[in-house]
Formats: sequence, C-alpha cells, structure tokens
Amino acid sequence: MKKSLIALAALASFAGVASAQSSVTLFGIVDATIAYGHGSVANKTQLTNSGYNSSRLGFRGTEDLGGGMSASFWLEAGLNNDDGQGAATNSNNQASGAGAAVAGRQGLTFNRRSTVSLAGGFGEIRLGRDYTPQFWNLTVFDPFGTNGVGTTQTLNSIITGVTSVRASNTVGYFLPGNLGGFYGQVQYYMGENLSNAVDTFVPPRSTKKDGTGMGIRLGFANGPFNVAFATSKTRYAAGDVTQSNIGGQYDFGMAKLQAHYSRDKNDGLVVGGATGKGWLIGGLIPVGAGEIRLAYSRYEVNTVGTPESKKWALGYVHNLSKRTALYATVARVNNSGGAASALNGSVTGANTNSSGYDFGVRHSF
Amino acid sequence: MKKSLIALAALASFAGVASAQSSVTLFGIVDATIAYGHGSVANKTQLTNSGYNSSRLGFRGTEDLGGGMSASFWLEAGLNNDDGQGAATNSNNQASGAGAAVAGRQGLTFNRRSTVSLAGGFGEIRLGRDYTPQFWNLTVFDPFGTNGVGTTQTLNSIITGVTSVRASNTVGYFLPGNLGGFYGQVQYYMGENLSNAVDTFVPPRSTKKDGTGMGIRLGFANGPFNVAFATSKTRYAAGDVTQSNIGGQYDFGMAKLQAHYSRDKNDGLVVGGATGKGWLIGGLIPVGAGEIRLAYSRYEVNTVGTPESKKWALGYVHNLSKRTALYATVARVNNSGGAASALNGSVTGANTNSSGYDFGVRHSF
Amino acid sequence: MKKSLIALAALASFAGVASAQSSVTLFGIVDATIAYGHGSVANKTQLTNSGYNSSRLGFRGTEDLGGGMSASFWLEAGLNNDDGQGAATNSNNQASGAGAAVAGRQGLTFNRRSTVSLAGGFGEIRLGRDYTPQFWNLTVFDPFGTNGVGTTQTLNSIITGVTSVRASNTVGYFLPGNLGGFYGQVQYYMGENLSNAVDTFVPPRSTKKDGTGMGIRLGFANGPFNVAFATSKTRYAAGDVTQSNIGGQYDFGMAKLQAHYSRDKNDGLVVGGATGKGWLIGGLIPVGAGEIRLAYSRYEVNTVGTPESKKWALGYVHNLSKRTALYATVARVNNSGGAASALNGSVTGANTNSSGYDFGVRHSF
Repeated sequence: MKKSLIALAALASFAGVASAQSSVTLFGIVDATIAYGHGSVANKTQLTNSGYNSSRLGFRGTEDLGGGMSASFWLEAGLNNDDGQGAATNSNNQASGAGAAVAGRQGLTFNRRSTVSLAGGFGEIRLGRDYTPQFWNLTVFDPFGTNGVGTTQTLNSIITGVTSVRASNTVGYFLPGNLGGFYGQVQYYMGENLSNAVDTFVPPRSTKKDGTGMGIRLGFANGPFNVAFATSKTRYAAGDVTQSNIGGQYDFGMAKLQAHYSRDKNDGLVVGGATGKGWLIGGLIPVGAGEIRLAYSRYEVNTVGTPESKKWALGYVHNLSKRTALYATVARVNNSGGAASALNGSVTGANTNSSGYDFGVRHSF
Repeated sequence: MKKSLIALAALASFAGVASAQSSVTLFGIVDATIAYGHGSVANKTQLTNSGYNSSRLGFRGTEDLGGGMSASFWLEAGLNNDDGQGAATNSNNQASGAGAAVAGRQGLTFNRRSTVSLAGGFGEIRLGRDYTPQFWNLTVFDPFGTNGVGTTQTLNSIITGVTSVRASNTVGYFLPGNLGGFYGQVQYYMGENLSNAVDTFVPPRSTKKDGTGMGIRLGFANGPFNVAFATSKTRYAAGDVTQSNIGGQYDFGMAKLQAHYSRDKNDGLVVGGATGKGWLIGGLIPVGAGEIRLAYSRYEVNTVGTPESKKWALGYVHNLSKRTALYATVARVNNSGGAASALNGSVTGANTNSSGYDFGVRHSF
Repeated sequence: MKKSLIALAALASFAGVASAQSSVTLFGIVDATIAYGHGSVANKTQLTNSGYNSSRLGFRGTEDLGGGMSASFWLEAGLNNDDGQGAATNSNNQASGAGAAVAGRQGLTFNRRSTVSLAGGFGEIRLGRDYTPQFWNLTVFDPFGTNGVGTTQTLNSIITGVTSVRASNTVGYFLPGNLGGFYGQVQYYMGENLSNAVDTFVPPRSTKKDGTGMGIRLGFANGPFNVAFATSKTRYAAGDVTQSNIGGQYDFGMAKLQAHYSRDKNDGLVVGGATGKGWLIGGLIPVGAGEIRLAYSRYEVNTVGTPESKKWALGYVHNLSKRTALYATVARVNNSGGAASALNGSVTGANTNSSGYDFGVRHSF
C-alpha cells in the first residue's frame, strides 16, 4: 500500500485530476510472536506482538510547497495485534499523563508519532509527539532494534524515565541532509504545567517543569561508517533525569558491527541520585535470504549492591519477501548485585538467570 | 473503496511503480437502526447500530509470496456509529481483560479481528485476535446472522462465556480450500497467565489456565448443501465452559432453509455446572430486490426452574444497491421457568414477554 | 489524498475494475500551535492543536443509487496531534456519557461525526452522531470559526450544555439544495433512557428524557449575503436547556463582515434558570496570500453579579498553499461582574483580564 499510494499520486497527476502533491501513504506492520520466558519464580507463554518490528498502522504524506519547501504530516499508531488493543500515549511527559492513558490501551491513538513539519533548505521544523533524540543511538546501533526478547539491556526505563523513547508536545529541529554526512537534531518538549504550580523542591526536582526537557543528537555517516552522540535532560517532580549515549557501526560487507555506550542519571530514585551505565556490542551477518543477529549487552546501576544485568542474544531472520519474514530469537540474562531482570513476562528472583525465546512472523504493508 | 484499492494495485503494477502484491483494502460497514424494545418493566427507544450487519472499519491485504504461498493481514474495528464510539476488545480472554477495555469503548481498537497469516497448499496459519470456531455455526446458520432484534436465542453469553464469539492470543489453522467440499479449522488461545498463578481449585476450575482454550470446527459444503459441527473448551478460574453446536442449510432456490442445535456447559454458574441447550429453525426467501427473513429459536438452561426463552423473528431487507439496504425486523420472545430475556434494551419481568423492532439502513464500502 | 482517491475512482472506472460509485475519501487536518495564556493567577505555555482548524482524520464516501438518490457515510475523528491522543465522544448526550469517555481520550473514536445518509430530491436523512443545528451560526459567522485563542465568547458551554456542538443518536433531515437560496435542517436526538426511569422532577427537569432534544436551523444565502436562525431545546435531569441564535455575513469583496447574536437558557444552573446572551461582530480581510481576522464578542449571564466577558481578537493567516498555512492570533478578554474567563489554559481571578496568543501551522490532506 505504501508503494501503491505513491504510485497513485503519479497516476492521478497524469490523469490531470489531482495534483502531484496529494500523495498520502497508508502503511503498517503486523508482527505476531509466540514468546516464552523462563524465570526462577514463574514462566510465561504468550502470543504477543512486535518481536522483530513494532506493529503499527499509520498515515503520512508530504506536500511540495515549491522553492525547495515542503509540508508533511505523520500519524502512526501502535498495534497490539495479538489481542486487537491499541497503544497508549502520554499527554504531558509525566507519570500522570501515562496513568490516564494506559487503561484499555485507548484504541488507535497515534502514540508512536503524530507530527506536522515544515522543511526546506534550512532543515526541518517538526511539531507534535515524536521520538526523543536520546533514544535513537540505543535502537539504531542494536542488532535487535530494541524489539523482542533480544533487545538491548541499555534501555532501562527505570533509570531513564518517561521520555526515554518518545515525548509529547515537542518542538524539534533537524539539520538538512546535505551537510557532507553530518546529521543532527535538537528537541524541546513541554510538561505544560501552570506557572503557579507549587514548587517548593530544590533542584534537581521541579513540579513546575515536571515533564519539560530537551535533547540533542549529532552524528556523522559516510559509506560503511556511522557514529552518533546524544544527550538530554528532563525535569521531573520526582527528580531530574539525564540520559546520554554514543553509538556507531561499521559495515564490513560480510557483517555489520554495532556498539553503543550509555550513561544515565536519575535524581528521583535514591537520595543523591542513581547512575546507570552500560554498553552493547553486536552484529548483523547476512546469510542468503536471511540474517543472523547477535548481541551482548550489560547495564549496571550504582545503588546498594550495584545491581547488574548481562544479556546474550542470538537470532535469525528469514525473509520470505521484502515485506514478510519469519524470525526466531533466543536470549539469556544473568543478574547480579540484586538485579532481577526477567525475559518475556517471566518472573525471576534476585541474582538468578532468566531465558526466553521469540518465534514469529512480521508482515509489513 | 474495497474495489477501488484492488483496482489500484492493478493500475499501479501497470505503471511499473508498485508491485502487484501491494494491494491493501480499506473496507467498512455503517449500519444505523431505530430500535424499540418493549418489556413488562420498561421500554426503550434508541438510535443504535448493526441491526442488519455489524458496523466496522477495516484494513486488510494479501501479499503473493510465490510458489502458492501468501502472507496477509486483517485489522478490523467495530464501530458504534450512533454515537461515534469504538468497540472494546478483551486482552486475555478473561473477565479482567474485558473489564479494563470496556470503559469508553476504547476508540478504533481492532476488536473484531487483528491477524497475520501465512497460507499455502497446506492451508492457513493465522495468529492474533479472531472469531472462535465455536461461533460460526450460530451465525452462519441464523437468518439474522446474530445481528439485531431477530438474532438467535442460542448464543447465550451467560452460559458460553468470554470466548463464545472471539478470542485473543490465538494460534489457528485452517484446512486448504481444495478438499472436495470439506472445510475446517482448529484454534488454540492463551490466557497468558504466569506459571506460578495460585491454582488451589480442583478441576473444572483453573486460575493458571484462566482464559486458555481450544476449539475445532469441521464442515462439508456441496452445491445447495452445507453442514458443520464445532466444539470447544475454555478454562476459567470461575469454572470451565464447553460449547458445542451443529448447523446446516439447504438452498431450495425459492428459499434457503437453515437450522442449528447447540449445547453448552458452564461449570461456574452453579455447583455441578449448568447446561444450556437450544435450537433454531428459519429461512431466507428472496423477493425481487429484497429478502424475507424468518426464524424461530429457543434456549433452556437446567438451573432451578429450568428457565427457557422462545423467540419468533420476522424481517425484510430491501436492497437499494449491492452496498446499501433498508431493513425492518420485528421479534417477540416468550419467557418461562423464571427467564427474563428482553429485546432491544427493554426490561421485562420473569416469565413475561418482550417484543421489539428494528428499522434501519446498512451502507457498506 | 482527498483529491487522489476521488481521482482513483475515476481511474478505476476507466480501467473497468471498479464502479464509479466506489469513491472513498481519506481526509484530515493536522494543526499544531504554540499557545500561551496569561492570567492574574497563572500562565501556561503549551504545544497544543487546532489553533486554526480542528485536527481530524476521517473517511467518507458517497454511492450513487440512481434516480437522483445517493447513500453516503462519514466517519471523522478528532486528533490531539500534540500528544497523539484521540478525542472522546459522548454516548447519550448526558453528563454520564461524557464522563466515561473522557479518560485517556479513547483513541480514534469518531467523535466529530459518524453518520450514514440517504439523499435525493427530497433532501437528506442523516443518522448518527453529528453537529447540532444550534451550533452552526456560532461557528460559520465567527471569523475564528470557534477555534483557537480568538474563538467567540458566545459559545458558552456552561450555559448551553452537552449538545451545544454535537449530539449522539440523532435523526436529522436537511432540505434539498435547490430551494432558491433557502436552506435548513431539523434534528432529533435521543438520551436513550429506560421508560421507567424515576422522574419525580417537575419540568423543566426530566430524568426520563435526560439527553433527549431537538433543534432546527433555517437560512437564506444569495450571492454575498447569508443569514440563518436556529433554536433548540434539550431535556436534562439537571434542568432543560434552550439555545437560540441568529447570524449573518455580507461579503463586500475587500472584506467579509460577520455578526451573530445568541440567547441561551439553562434551567439547571440556578433556581428559576439562568439566561445568557451575547453577540459578536467581526470580519475577514483578504491580504495577498493571507487573511486578517478580527472579532469582538461578549457574553453575559443573569446570575448574581451579572458576570460578563468581552473579548478582542486579532489574527493573521498566511497560506503557503491551499493545504498549508501559518497563522498567528492574539486575544484579550476583560471580565466583570465576577466572571473569570481565561485564555489558553491560564487561570485568572474574578474581574481581571486574561490575554494570550497562538502561533501555528495547519496542514490538511
């Protein structure tokens, strides 16, 4: 459909009825997974979703304004195609915004992205709900793309908070694409609190700025080489969060090597703040119509006992076509220092291991 | 639209821009009904929906993978077009899953169906939320298609439980279409509970398996003749439910005769379990651009007093086109043994009658 | 896309695959605004939506039935594109119906409109959720179209109640378009209560009819001239509401002058009922690719102190194309008699002023 409607715009302009600008793309992914998780306390078997790519349904389009300028929109909703539920968003980048939205998952809310943009030689101004700059390095430089049982351990939402992946009420700017391989973005997002919000906290806490923050990402890509750095700070009533990371990849042809390092600080977890840090190293190896995926990642937090989790993940994706793939992943996480990270919905005790697998099909349109 | 987008795929491949596989169909039904119900306690008048066919909006598509194989998806949401609400789903086939989803109806949740499939000479593997095998005979062999005031009495959700129509987290298999008229499907669905769920109940109750079940349906169709049998069992913490039925039809040309028989057991309703059984006989009579619909159905439960309901229903559908129809239905239900079945939202006392009518328009796209 | 899919229908019929009737239009607006409000108690800055036009996503289509008859459907959902949330509807035109639907905004619920229609020489019968007749004059004859910080003060939902803009469960009739400039509509909407609802209230209160009402609008348009009158009554358990208004415009070419007067009565606000009345005068002045918008509106309620609000609003819209526009609006409201109307989410004290601005982009497809 993605291709069809772009084709449609071409045909329509040929027919002289509609202008070439009126191209709207309907697109989506339906990814279903049989997921098993084993832990020392309880196991779990599910038919779940998004084991390889995140299930979604979206509408997007671009209008050519002339003079190198364009306007565009992007509305993208998460799908829980195992049970038909939609996916919730967060209205104000705060705990309260998520709470209200979670019950029942809220149907076809455009939680993944809902933006309007103006672009030109200057770059792109983008307004609405979008990914945060601080998220990209963790997913782009993870062989498992932060999906499924093999996802990197470095994206630890306990440390990184509400805006670690997406934010609402954002004003974003992206560099133009013609900077010799340099790319970048900066994003400001608002908690939208009243100016008289009671704010007796001393920093690093703020009720008045709860949910307000900023992130920046800068990178350089050239042929097989790609590297990027990002940092961000979000104010919360419970304590500010900073999230920083650097990642890169090199494509050797027979394999693509990927690695990233992240360092996060959450002033709300313990007195004085908690610092988490971790890294990933992995790779993607093309094999005929398929691809082997391999990653090792670890993350530790400097609270009492220094809880740490280390994960091995191995997967294979078999492409039946460009749109449809079968995949399987196995993973195992080792916990120490009091950590109890568990895979695929299982429950494991502190300092024990957890393992799991995904077996699924991904179909895009 | 349904036709348009399929046409689009053909045109697009002609233009050489998109491949023939990229056909996505947008489809839907908007059915609005003035519905009146009369009961001994209270009457009700509504503008409601789905008096003839269930209102819906959906997206579906099929990709040809070559070698007789195909991949497909189907996302279908129920619509309450009388007030704009969406329709809720159930996340885990349990009472808890429905409860969370009902409030506010949850927008464009794909509650009616959300599946991804792989099909080939072997048949079809289908994953996601779908109808259960035990539902089909009750709707296919009901002249009113389990919609509106005339719907069969044999679909008694008090007896048959959460999965009597649809289930989430299903893994289904369908026989291929070339078996000389034989058709069939088997479906397994998961409650997705933790393996350490406290399970002190003796069967027929299980917390650990709450919402997990299986159904099978086998049929044979040849020319004017069609018959099918289905049976299923779902585990619930409140008590297991089995649902079995057989149905058939014969098309005499001047009329199509339909009948079905159902037998259900719910171990959670009373100590020792409650058994419900019932049957329907009815027919469809083509009349010019329209169709007369007629059905008599009854259902009784073996609890104290043996409550029983018997329903007459008579309707007429007038097709303004293939896509648009006007329809009217009248129905009357007689209660005995303490039953108090009431039509179209009215309330009636035990052992009294209830009657009602639908008058509406169905438009599909 | 709007144009594309209409074009598609034409192409498809040419290709002989789909009939010309199968035209479905996917349409929408994504409008994002940086909105600031200043009040004596608290200010607020937001990235919000719909500062110029209401953000939405919709599906609509029309089928030619022959003989001058047609069937059509319209499904339109509000979007909160600043945070991805959908917009809630109201199931029964009562306070209870809204309450259930608001939490989490409920995804892609078709709250703005969900209707099916039959039209012909006789006019149009429309069933479902739709605008009420009593709303149109307030938005058509407001230079700001009841959107954004400049919206008219005469649409006072405290006085005018749940159905002041839209109603669910409506049966509507529209005059045909060939009456020499005369146009009109009448609409009946149902609260859908049981007939035995306890109704001990003396009028003007009714539990049994809570949410049931009727509205009518009649107008005349000829060349630059347009005038219309509307009146309505809605029954509520808290007290009946009547809403009446008259509005008009004259297009002088260099400017379009607009004005309206409204008078509302709410029997539930105070003993004996509260009456609100107000008026607006404003205009639209085309300037090159843009338009200046200007309005003055006021509204007063006859409760203790006679609270009154007066608003000045000035705006400019710059069209980058037919589909994309930048806009800015400033407004100031003066309160007296105890009124505390505040702009853009700010909070102001009784009898103080509030001011605010919008700065945004509107993109339609």
